[in-house]
Amino acid sequence: MNHRIEKDTMGEVQVPADKYWGAQTERSRNNFKIGPEASMPKEIIYAFAYLKKAAALANHELGVLPAEKKDLIGKVCDEILAGKLDGEFPLVIWQTGSGTQSNMNVNEVIAYRAHVLSGGKLTDEQKILHPNDDVNKSQSSNDTFPTAMHIAAYKQTVEITIPGMQKLRDTLARKSAEYKNIVKTGRTHFMDATPLTLGQEFSGYVQQIDNSLRTIKNALEAVRELALGGTAVGTGLNTPKGYDVLVAKKIADLTGYPFVTAPNKFEALAAHDAMVELSGALKRAAVALMKIANDIRMLSSGPRCGIGEILIPDNEPGSSIMPGKVNPTQPEALTMVCAQVMGNDVAVSIGGANGHFELNVFKPVIAANVLQSARLIGDACVSFNEKCAIGIEPNKDIIQQHLENSLMLVTALNTHIGYEKAAKIAKTAHKENKTLREAAIGLGYLTSEQFDQWVRPEKMVGSLEK
Amino acid sequence: MNHRIEKDTMGEVQVPADKYWGAQTERSRNNFKIGPEASMPKEIIYAFAYLKKAAALANHELGVLPAEKKDLIGKVCDEILAGKLDGEFPLVIWQTGSGTQSNMNVNEVIAYRAHVLSGGKLTDEQKILHPNDDVNKSQSSNDTFPTAMHIAAYKQTVEITIPGMQKLRDTLARKSAEYKNIVKTGRTHFMDATPLTLGQEFSGYVQQIDNSLRTIKNALEAVRELALGGTAVGTGLNTPKGYDVLVAKKIADLTGYPFVTAPNKFEALAAHDAMVELSGALKRAAVALMKIANDIRMLSSGPRCGIGEILIPDNEPGSSIMPGKVNPTQPEALTMVCAQVMGNDVAVSIGGANGHFELNVFKPVIAANVLQSARLIGDACVSFNEKCAIGIEPNKDIIQQHLENSLMLVTALNTHIGYEKAAKIAKTAHKENKTLREAAIGLGYLTSEQFDQWVRPEKMVGSLEK
Amino acid sequence: MNHRIEKDTMGEVQVPADKYWGAQTERSRNNFKIGPEASMPKEIIYAFAYLKKAAALANHELGVLPAEKKDLIGKVCDEILAGKLDGEFPLVIWQTGSGTQSNMNVNEVIAYRAHVLSGGKLTDEQKILHPNDDVNKSQSSNDTFPTAMHIAAYKQTVEITIPGMQKLRDTLARKSAEYKNIVKTGRTHFMDATPLTLGQEFSGYVQQIDNSLRTIKNALEAVRELALGGTAVGTGLNTPKGYDVLVAKKIADLTGYPFVTAPNKFEALAAHDAMVELSGALKRAAVALMKIANDIRMLSSGPRCGIGEILIPDNEPGSSIMPGKVNPTQPEALTMVCAQVMGNDVAVSIGGANGHFELNVFKPVIAANVLQSARLIGDACVSFNEKCAIGIEPNKDIIQQHLENSLMLVTALNTHIGYEKAAKIAKTAHKENKTLREAAIGLGYLTSEQFDQWVRPEKMVGSLEK
Amino acid sequence: MNHRIEKDTMGEVQVPADKYWGAQTERSRNNFKIGPEASMPKEIIYAFAYLKKAAALANHELGVLPAEKKDLIGKVCDEILAGKLDGEFPLVIWQTGSGTQSNMNVNEVIAYRAHVLSGGKLTDEQKILHPNDDVNKSQSSNDTFPTAMHIAAYKQTVEITIPGMQKLRDTLARKSAEYKNIVKTGRTHFMDATPLTLGQEFSGYVQQIDNSLRTIKNALEAVRELALGGTAVGTGLNTPKGYDVLVAKKIADLTGYPFVTAPNKFEALAAHDAMVELSGALKRAAVALMKIANDIRMLSSGPRCGIGEILIPDNEPGSSIMPGKVNPTQPEALTMVCAQVMGNDVAVSIGGANGHFELNVFKPVIAANVLQSARLIGDACVSFNEKCAIGIEPNKDIIQQHLENSLMLVTALNTHIGYEKAAKIAKTAHKENKTLREAAIGLGYLTSEQFDQWVRPEKMVGSLEK
Repeated sequence: MNHRIEKDTMGEVQVPADKYWGAQTERSRNNFKIGPEASMPKEIIYAFAYLKKAAALANHELGVLPAEKKDLIGKVCDEILAGKLDGEFPLVIWQTGSGTQSNMNVNEVIAYRAHVLSGGKLTDEQKILHPNDDVNKSQSSNDTFPTAMHIAAYKQTVEITIPGMQKLRDTLARKSAEYKNIVKTGRTHFMDATPLTLGQEFSGYVQQIDNSLRTIKNALEAVRELALGGTAVGTGLNTPKGYDVLVAKKIADLTGYPFVTAPNKFEALAAHDAMVELSGALKRAAVALMKIANDIRMLSSGPRCGIGEILIPDNEPGSSIMPGKVNPTQPEALTMVCAQVMGNDVAVSIGGANGHFELNVFKPVIAANVLQSARLIGDACVSFNEKCAIGIEPNKDIIQQHLENSLMLVTALNTHIGYEKAAKIAKTAHKENKTLREAAIGLGYLTSEQFDQWVRPEKMVGSLEK
Repeated sequence: MNHRIEKDTMGEVQVPADKYWGAQTERSRNNFKIGPEASMPKEIIYAFAYLKKAAALANHELGVLPAEKKDLIGKVCDEILAGKLDGEFPLVIWQTGSGTQSNMNVNEVIAYRAHVLSGGKLTDEQKILHPNDDVNKSQSSNDTFPTAMHIAAYKQTVEITIPGMQKLRDTLARKSAEYKNIVKTGRTHFMDATPLTLGQEFSGYVQQIDNSLRTIKNALEAVRELALGGTAVGTGLNTPKGYDVLVAKKIADLTGYPFVTAPNKFEALAAHDAMVELSGALKRAAVALMKIANDIRMLSSGPRCGIGEILIPDNEPGSSIMPGKVNPTQPEALTMVCAQVMGNDVAVSIGGANGHFELNVFKPVIAANVLQSARLIGDACVSFNEKCAIGIEPNKDIIQQHLENSLMLVTALNTHIGYEKAAKIAKTAHKENKTLREAAIGLGYLTSEQFDQWVRPEKMVGSLEK
Repeated sequence: MNHRIEKDTMGEVQVPADKYWGAQTERSRNNFKIGPEASMPKEIIYAFAYLKKAAALANHELGVLPAEKKDLIGKVCDEILAGKLDGEFPLVIWQTGSGTQSNMNVNEVIAYRAHVLSGGKLTDEQKILHPNDDVNKSQSSNDTFPTAMHIAAYKQTVEITIPGMQKLRDTLARKSAEYKNIVKTGRTHFMDATPLTLGQEFSGYVQQIDNSLRTIKNALEAVRELALGGTAVGTGLNTPKGYDVLVAKKIADLTGYPFVTAPNKFEALAAHDAMVELSGALKRAAVALMKIANDIRMLSSGPRCGIGEILIPDNEPGSSIMPGKVNPTQPEALTMVCAQVMGNDVAVSIGGANGHFELNVFKPVIAANVLQSARLIGDACVSFNEKCAIGIEPNKDIIQQHLENSLMLVTALNTHIGYEKAAKIAKTAHKENKTLREAAIGLGYLTSEQFDQWVRPEKMVGSLEK
Repeated sequence: MNHRIEKDTMGEVQVPADKYWGAQTERSRNNFKIGPEASMPKEIIYAFAYLKKAAALANHELGVLPAEKKDLIGKVCDEILAGKLDGEFPLVIWQTGSGTQSNMNVNEVIAYRAHVLSGGKLTDEQKILHPNDDVNKSQSSNDTFPTAMHIAAYKQTVEITIPGMQKLRDTLARKSAEYKNIVKTGRTHFMDATPLTLGQEFSGYVQQIDNSLRTIKNALEAVRELALGGTAVGTGLNTPKGYDVLVAKKIADLTGYPFVTAPNKFEALAAHDAMVELSGALKRAAVALMKIANDIRMLSSGPRCGIGEILIPDNEPGSSIMPGKVNPTQPEALTMVCAQVMGNDVAVSIGGANGHFELNVFKPVIAANVLQSARLIGDACVSFNEKCAIGIEPNKDIIQQHLENSLMLVTALNTHIGYEKAAKIAKTAHKENKTLREAAIGLGYLTSEQFDQWVRPEKMVGSLEK
C-alpha cells in the first residue's frame, strides 16, 4: 500500500496515502488491534460531526476562530453527516478509555479533508487547519467524547428506540380493544386460574410498555446535558467566556434536539451516570418486553399439544428437518435482544462505577453498549410488531374450550358458599374428572340453578373494567 | 415441643401449640427448608399489616365486613406494627413465588390472635375470624403480595435510602464550598492533569448524588401504585365496587404516603417493572457512590507512598499485624455495598423478566433484593458520612507540592504558543527532570515573565465558576 | 447496659460487660451500622475457629507458642465450633474490606474467653492471651480472612451444595430409567416436535446436573488452596520457617478436607479468583437448574388448560382466593434461588475484579455471596427433590393424546418422500384440521399401509438409545 | 437490483439474482431487520462449513449420500473456509433462536453454489443438490447450530484467547524473575504496607493468569462435545446408525481438534451449559485481567503526583488538549474489554437459563457473546502485552524513596517489642512527621543498633521465597 508521512508530537508515522486521517489515528490503528476494525459506533462519529461544527460556530461567534476556518470545519462535518467519509474512521472501541484517539481521528480527518477541499494536497506538510489548535479549539477529548456519547445516545433513543416501542405499544393497544369481549381462562403459576378477557391480558402489555417509555424519557433528561465546555478536567480551561452555553445551543440548533450545557462539568467528565441511567431504563424495557414476548410465544404454542389460544403469522419454514413446522421466531429474536440488553447493562454499570478522579475512562465501552441496546430494542420492536404482533389472531375455539374446562371458575362461589366448600368442589371435580357443575351438585352444596346464576365467566372479568 | 392440630383444605397439620400461625404456615415451614428460617423480610410483614388493616376498613365501609371483625383485624395489625408478634412469621423468601404462604401466614396470625384477644383459645376448632373468608376478604395473594412489596419498598426508600444519601450529599456540598479556593492538580487516566479546586472536585460528587436522588424519586412514582383490588388475575373478582380506589386511600392514610391504586391491575400482578425500575435506580446510585468512595480512598492513600491529598478519620486500628496502620474502611464498606446492589439488580431483573401470563412468580426474591439494596445504601451512606465524610480534611502541604510539580500546567500555554510547542516543553521537563519554567525558557519559547504571567494555576480553574 | 473498659492501640472503649469481645470489635459495631447486626456469615466464624486452632498448633510445633497458650486457644476454638459462643460475633459484612475486624473479633473472643476459662475476670486489665501477639501470631487479617473464606466455602460446597444436587440428580436418573418407554411428543420453540421418551427428556436433566457437579468440583481445586502463611502482603513476614505448609496440614487434619498451602501467597491475598470461579460454577448450576425447574412446571401445567403431561405433588393449598388450586411451588422456590445465585455471581465478580496491589478489599461481600449461593442451591435441591421430584408421575393419558395428535410425526416421512411433500402433508392436516394419515392419503403421497409402516412414534425415538 | 425467483415450502421469494442464497435466507433477511446486516459471527459460518463437509463425508461413508454429492458439498465448504463466499451470509444474530435460518443459509449457499460449480445456472428450477434433503441430510438446525457454536468457540478459545493470555503471562513471568531483587513498599487498602519485591508482586499476576488458563481449559472439556447426530429433539431421528460418533470424528479430523460426540444429545440441544461454563471461565479471566491492568496503571500513575513506581511505554499523545501527556491506554483498553466480558457473561447466562423442553432458543445470542468475549480477551492480551507489558520498566528511584519512607517497616518490630509498642512508634512518626528510627529511639523502645538490625526491608520479603 502507498503511504505518506504524517507527524504529531511524538514523531513521524506512515499513513495510507489516500486516507484523510493522520498520525494519531494511525498510531491507534497499530496500537489497538482488538476485535474487528472500525468497531467504534458510527453514531459516535456522526455525533462528533455535529459537535465539531457547533464548536466552530461558537468559537467563531466568540471571536476565537476566523470565519474561513469555521466554514471549512462546517463543510467537512456536513460531508461526514452525509456519510461521504465513512471509510475514514477505522478505530475500535477498545482504545484509550477517554476516546481521545477517536476525537483525534475526527480532528485529523476534518483538518486534512478541509485542506484538500481548499485545494491542498495530503502530502503538504503544513495543512490549512491544525487538528488540535483549530478543529479541537476550546475542546478536550474529555469533554467532546462524553458530548458525542450523549448526542448519539439521545438521537438513537429518540429516533429508533422510542418510535419502535411506540409502534408495538399501539398495535397491542388496538388488539386489547379488539379483544375486550373475548373471555378466556387466566393462568397463574402456569396453572389454570380465574377468567379474564384477552383484551385485559393485552392491556397489561400496553401498560408495561407505557411505563417503560416513561422511564426512558425520564432518563433522557440527564442525557440531554452536555459536557462540552469543561475541556480537560471540567474547569473549562482554554475556553472563551460563555462558550459552554453557546456551544450547547449550537448543537441543539443543528440537531433539532433540546440539548443544554451540563450544570456541573466535573460530574459530566468524571462520571457517566446519565448513560448508566439510560442503560438501566433500556434494561427495564427489556425486562418488560421479555415478559410480553414470552407470553405471546406460550399463548401460541402448539399447534396441537400446547396452549394454542392465539395464532401468530407463519413467516418462514420453522425447521430444516421437521416439515411444516412454524415457530414463534419473532418472540425469539426479541427475547434474545432482551438478554443482550440485560448483559449490556452490567457492562455499562461496571464501566460507570470505575471512573476515577477527574475522568471516567470507560467511555467507549459505555457508549457502544448503550447505543447497541437502544438500537436493538427499537429494531426488534419494529420487527416483532410488523411480523408478529399485527398478525396475531385469537383462536376462539380453543379459548372457549379452555374456559369451559377450567376448574377455577369455582372461585365465583367463594362469596356464596365460602372458600372451603368451594375448594372441596374443585378438588372433587379434579379427582373424579367431572365438571364443576357435576361436582357441586353431587356434593349437595348448591342447586343447578344456583350454579348457572353464580358461575358465569363473563361476569367474573368485570369489576375493574373502565 | 407441644403441638396443636390445625387444618386447611388439604387436611390436618400439627402446629406448635403456642404459635398463632396455622396449617398453611406450618406446611410452608416444612416444605421450604431453604436457607435460614424467617428470611422473609420483616418490612414485608409490616407492610402486610398496613394492607390487612386497610382492607378491613375498606371492606367494612363498603358493607362486606362487620364492624367487630374490622376492629379485631385492625387491633392485631397494630400489634404487628408495634413489633409484638415478630416471632410469628417464620417463613422464608424461597417459598412459592407468589408469596401466598406469607400472605396466609399473616392471615392466620391475624385470625388466631384475634380469636385469643376475644377470649378464645388457640385449640378451639372454630375461630372468630376465618383467615381466608374474613382477613383475606376482597384479596388474593396475587394482589396483596405485590402491594406489600410496594409499601415496603416505598417506605424503605423514603425512610432510609433517601435520607441517608441526602446526609452524605449535604456534607459533600459543605466540603465543596469550604474547599472552593484550594487549587490542586487534576488527574485523568490516573495521570497528572490540569488543575482544579478541591471544591470543584467535590462538587462533582454532589451532582452525582443529586442526580441519583432524582432517579430514585422518579422510580417511586410507579412504586406508589398498588395492585390491591386486582385479586386473583387482575379483574378484581370478589371485590365490592370502588374497593380498589378506597383501599389504596386507606393505605395512604395509615402510612402517610401518597399511595394510589394502580391504573392497570393486570400489569401490577403479572409484572414487577416498578420494582425493577427502583432496583435500577438504586443500582445507578451504587455506581455513583462507588466512584465517590473510590476517589476518597485514593485521595487519602499513603500516608507516605500514595496520593495523600486528603486525610480521613482514624476510626479503628487498621491491621492485625501492621501496627499503626489506618485504612479507609468506610469507603470499603460502601463499595462492598455497591457491588452487592449491582448484583442484586441482576437478580431482580431476571426475576422481573420471568413473569408469565397473569402472574409473576418471582415476587419474594424481587422484594428481598430491592429491600436489601435500599437499606444497605441508606445505612452505608449514613455510616460513610458520619465516620468518614464529615471528618475529611485537606492535606494542604501535599496538595501544594503536587500542584507545583505537575507538568500539566503547561496546558495554559496552548493558546499562547500552540499545542506542539507546549508539548515539547512538557516532554523536555519530564525527560530532563526539570521544572516547566526551566524547560520552557531553556527551549527559548518564552521569557520568564511570560511564564509567570501565563502559567498561574489559580487562573486555570475559573472559567466555569459560578 | 453494663459496660467494662477495654483498650487497643487507639485508646479506651466501653464494651458490654458480659461479652467476650474487646475494643476493636466494639469499635466496628459502632462504626458500621449497616444492615442487620451479625450478618457476617457464621460459617466464616467457624472457619476462623479451625484456622486459629491450626495456627496455634503450628506455632507451637515450630517453637513460637508455648503449650499452655496453644491449649487454651484450641479449647476456645472447640467451644466456638460447638456453637457455644455464637452470641459473641456481632459484626456485619459491611465492615473493612479485609475483614480485619472479624479477625480481631475472633482474636479477642479467644483471648478473653481463654482468660476466663483460666480463672481470670473480664475486667482484668492484663489477660492471659494477647489477641494480636498470641492468638493472631504468625497471621494477618490479610491471610486469615481469605483462608476462612476458602475453608467455609469448601465446606459449604462439599457438605451442602454437592450432596443436595446429587440427591436431585439421583432421583431424576431413577425417573429417567423408569420412564424409558413412555413415548411422548417433543417440543422445540414451545411448538410440537418429533417424539422422544419421557426418560430421554429426563436424561438431559441428569446430564446437566452431572456436568454442573463436575464444574463445581473443578472449582474446588483452587478453593482448597489456603493463603495462610502469607501474612500482611504475601511474603510471610513474621512467620516461622515451614509454617505455611504446616498450618495448611493442620487445617486439613482438623477439618478432614484436603486443604493445602497456596502456591503463591501474593495472588491468594490480592485476588479472590478461586472464589470467583466457584461462584461461576454455582451460577452455571443455577442456569441448569432453572431450565430443569421450568420444564417441570411447564410439563405439569394445567390441570385442564395447560400441557399436563406430568403430575407433581400437591403440598399446600395454592391460592388464598382460588379454592382447590395447586401450584408448582417447589420449582418456583428453586428458580428464585437460581435468580439470586445469578445476581450474587455479579456481585462476586465485581468484588473480585476490584482488588488493588497487595490486597483485595471486597473479601466479606465475596464470602457472603458465595456462601449464600452454595447454601441456597444445596437446600433448594433437597427441597425440590423431596417435595417435588420424587413425587413426579407421568400423566399417561395426556401424553398419549398429545403424541397421537402431533403433526410432527410427519418427519418420519422425510427419508421416504422428501422434505417438501412431507411439509405439504403437515400443512394440509393443520389447515384442514385432519389427521396426518388423512392428509397424507388424501394428497396421494402414500398408502395407508405405508403410513402405518413408516409413521411409528416408538420407532422415532431410538437411534441414540444406548 | 436484479432478482430471480426461489421457492421453499411456503412459496416463492424474490432473491438477488447474483447471490447463492435461496428463499429461506431471503425471508430471514426481510423478517429480521434488527441491527446491522450480517451480524451472525463469521466464525459460526466457518464452523458450519466444517460440519457440513463432515456430515457429507459421514453420510457417504454410511451409504446414504452418493460420492458425487459428497464431493460437491466438500468443495463448496472448502470455498467457504477459504473466505471466498463471505458475502453470501447476510443474516443477523437476532433471528430465530435455533439459528435455523443460518443453517438454511449455509444449506442453500452450498446447494446453489454446487449447482453452479457443476455448470448449472442459479435460475434453474431444479438444482443438483437439495438444501434440505442433501446438504442437511442426517441433520437438523437443532443439532447443527449447537455443533457450530462449539466448533467456533473451541477454535476461538484455542487459537486466540489462550495464546494471547499465554503471551502476556510469559512476559509477566519474565518480569517477575527480572525484578526479584527490587524491594518496594507493599500496599494494602491503597495504604502503605510492609515491603515485598516487585518480582513477587508480578508473580501474583502470573499465578492469576495461570489459574484462569486452567479454568478455561477445564471448560473446553464440555465444549469439545458435539450435538451433531441428535437431529430434531436429540433422538437422532433420520440418521444412519453410528453417524453421531463418525461425524464427530470427521470434524475432529478436519479441524485438528479433539471433538467427540456428546454423551447425551438431549442435553446438548436443550441446554448450552457448556457455553455458559466457557463464558464463566472467560469472565473469571476478565476479573483477573482487570486486577492486573488496574495495578499496572496505578503503579505507573504520575508522572509527578502519583505512585510512579513503574514506567510504561509512551505509545501515543495522551491528550488532545494537555500537551505531552502520556496515558495508560493499554490498561484502559484491557479493562474495557473486561467490563464487556463480564456483561456478556450475564447475557449468556440469561440465554442459557431460558431453554425449554427439547430446545434452547437463545443459541445465536449465546454464540455471539462467547465468541466476542473469547476474541476480545485474546486480542486485548496481545495488545497489552506487546504495547505495554513488554516495555514496563521499574522506576528505581521512586521505589527506593517510597520504601524508605514507609512507616509499615515497623511491622518487623512486632516479634521483638510487641504489636502495641510498634504501633506507638508508627503513630508517633506519623504524627510528628519523623522517621521510624527517630520515633523508635525517641520513645526509648530500642537502640539505634537494634533498629538497624531489626528493620531491614530486604529481610522482610523472604519467608516465602522459593
